[in-house]
Amino acid sequence: MAGTDLKKLARELNLAVSTVSRALRDSHEISAATKARVKALADKYGFRPNPHASSLRQAKSRTIAVVVPEIRNNFFSQAINGIELVAQEKGYHVLIYLTHENSKQEREVVQLLQNGRADGLLISVTEAGSYPHLEACREAELPIVFFDRVVDEIDAPRVITDEKLLAYQTCRRLLESGCRRIAFLTMTGNLSISRHRQDGYLQALKEKGMEHLSITVECSAADGDSREQLKKLLSGPQRPDAVFAAVEKLAVDTYEVCAGMGLKIPEDLCVAGFSNLTVASLFNPPLTTVVQPAYEIGKEAAGILFRLIEGKKLLPGEHKIVLPSHLEWRRSTAR
Amino acid sequence: MAGTDLKKLARELNLAVSTVSRALRDSHEISAATKARVKALADKYGFRPNPHASSLRQAKSRTIAVVVPEIRNNFFSQAINGIELVAQEKGYHVLIYLTHENSKQEREVVQLLQNGRADGLLISVTEAGSYPHLEACREAELPIVFFDRVVDEIDAPRVITDEKLLAYQTCRRLLESGCRRIAFLTMTGNLSISRHRQDGYLQALKEKGMEHLSITVECSAADGDSREQLKKLLSGPQRPDAVFAAVEKLAVDTYEVCAGMGLKIPEDLCVAGFSNLTVASLFNPPLTTVVQPAYEIGKEAAGILFRLIEGKKLLPGEHKIVLPSHLEWRRSTAR
Repeated sequence: MAGTDLKKLARELNLAVSTVSRALRDSHEISAATKARVKALADKYGFRPNPHASSLRQAKSRTIAVVVPEIRNNFFSQAINGIELVAQEKGYHVLIYLTHENSKQEREVVQLLQNGRADGLLISVTEAGSYPHLEACREAELPIVFFDRVVDEIDAPRVITDEKLLAYQTCRRLLESGCRRIAFLTMTGNLSISRHRQDGYLQALKEKGMEHLSITVECSAADGDSREQLKKLLSGPQRPDAVFAAVEKLAVDTYEVCAGMGLKIPEDLCVAGFSNLTVASLFNPPLTTVVQPAYEIGKEAAGILFRLIEGKKLLPGEHKIVLPSHLEWRRSTAR
Repeated sequence: MAGTDLKKLARELNLAVSTVSRALRDSHEISAATKARVKALADKYGFRPNPHASSLRQAKSRTIAVVVPEIRNNFFSQAINGIELVAQEKGYHVLIYLTHENSKQEREVVQLLQNGRADGLLISVTEAGSYPHLEACREAELPIVFFDRVVDEIDAPRVITDEKLLAYQTCRRLLESGCRRIAFLTMTGNLSISRHRQDGYLQALKEKGMEHLSITVECSAADGDSREQLKKLLSGPQRPDAVFAAVEKLAVDTYEVCAGMGLKIPEDLCVAGFSNLTVASLFNPPLTTVVQPAYEIGKEAAGILFRLIEGKKLLPGEHKIVLPSHLEWRRSTAR
């Protein structure tokens, strides 16, 4: 069935094109009632779905694409190692694109990929108000799997971690150690990971009736700027006694700013953060980290993508996979 | 001209196929005398070079391939960022392959790339006795540029650093600080980078008449094994008073082994190493590193590759580009 036919059905039925497409492919994600409505109208117009069309198209490239914000970060390089392992077993090539946190770049790259360059897309998104390029992939029947940074509004499988729980546990333990003014450091922008991690932080404060003491600092992605923001935070009269960094870079920035200001970790400031730095234990002092199973995330996400590429049905539990992270409590938080 | 024709000429003239190919393309790398011999024999057989054949083939994929041992290492992820910047400016896709130090995997990947999947290849090789797959790229006229880990015997442009000089300077400074038994830690295998770095180390010892005190430890790539080797090295009656690691991983291993054995850095052992870890200054104690310009290496190598892809002639100085590294002397070597 041509894309214009799908669009015509979607318009008349007041459904998303992707919903119509999946109804015609008898997806388990679509209700029986909706499937019946879609099929009735398709029959009326004489539209015939071609169940093999997408797999025929997909058989061409034997390539999957991975779109990530950066690879200087250990999380993404470990995830790519996991993806690459699965792709190699399948005899597939891996195209890697870096968006450098630039949503325009992400849009352009994903649009390029819709013409048969890749059979499927693994993406950890950059911040943007809307994601029409990802909607377009769904309509073009290019399989997508999200990992780590997801878009809630787009219905595609996702592999994430229990980051809200781990953020909650880390902050609760900081509170139990006697920290009273914990600042949450996050990147600017409306990313899923930032929201979930902040939710965990706020939940821990709320439980102790300390929500009014929450401090969230949205840091700039530019190195110099984020350090200036941290310097300001740590110079005020009501200096925090702990910081909890939502991303690795901000924990590292905090160490550097503390060194510059003569502040001692953990005596003057406890520091914890999400990080997959394998050398965090060699820091002075060793850094407390929430470690995500990055390699496994990559492997799982690639596994799901290949099931989609091979036209297999996903089980309900495979649509959203949540892998456990763990907390490495070290001297940077030992009050 | 067909490949069989090139081979016939090469055999009769007792030259490499790549030399014949370049002679027919009037490359500056080939002497006028050789060009004359090749052209005379090609004329005799009526062979006609087709100067556009390779660029026509290359116009198809708009993709360059990058083959590296790993990306969990900061050097390679920074180099890939540099490559990716140039590729994006040119509107090219980047295919990334990891060989995981496995020469069979490297051979397979490079063979796959010879059928138009990529217009050019940037490679940092893994250790192997011979490199027929890279010779084959030359014969298939797939442009190659080496970066960091090169193969001396294969005539292709390369972007490297002054690693021998920096290894020499680091060891000289360790000697000047009073170190007398400096162990050189390297990976097993006959890699260009290991040889050059060892040469610098030996030169520094030789200058002081201390060559007989050299200790080279070839460490296994497996984590557990290399740590066992280091433990043995540091337990002996004649324990070194310094180690100089040819690769980042071995400097990190040394920190971990010292922590386990209760040895203090730098009091019991000075540690220095080649490393692009951006957090080396946060280590306890801060780690002395030789930092390579990884991002610039990636940019330069990609720039040269695009000149080849676009059929431009390289200037003599562009065939081998040597970029300067620098030494960050920190507390791990402060006796």
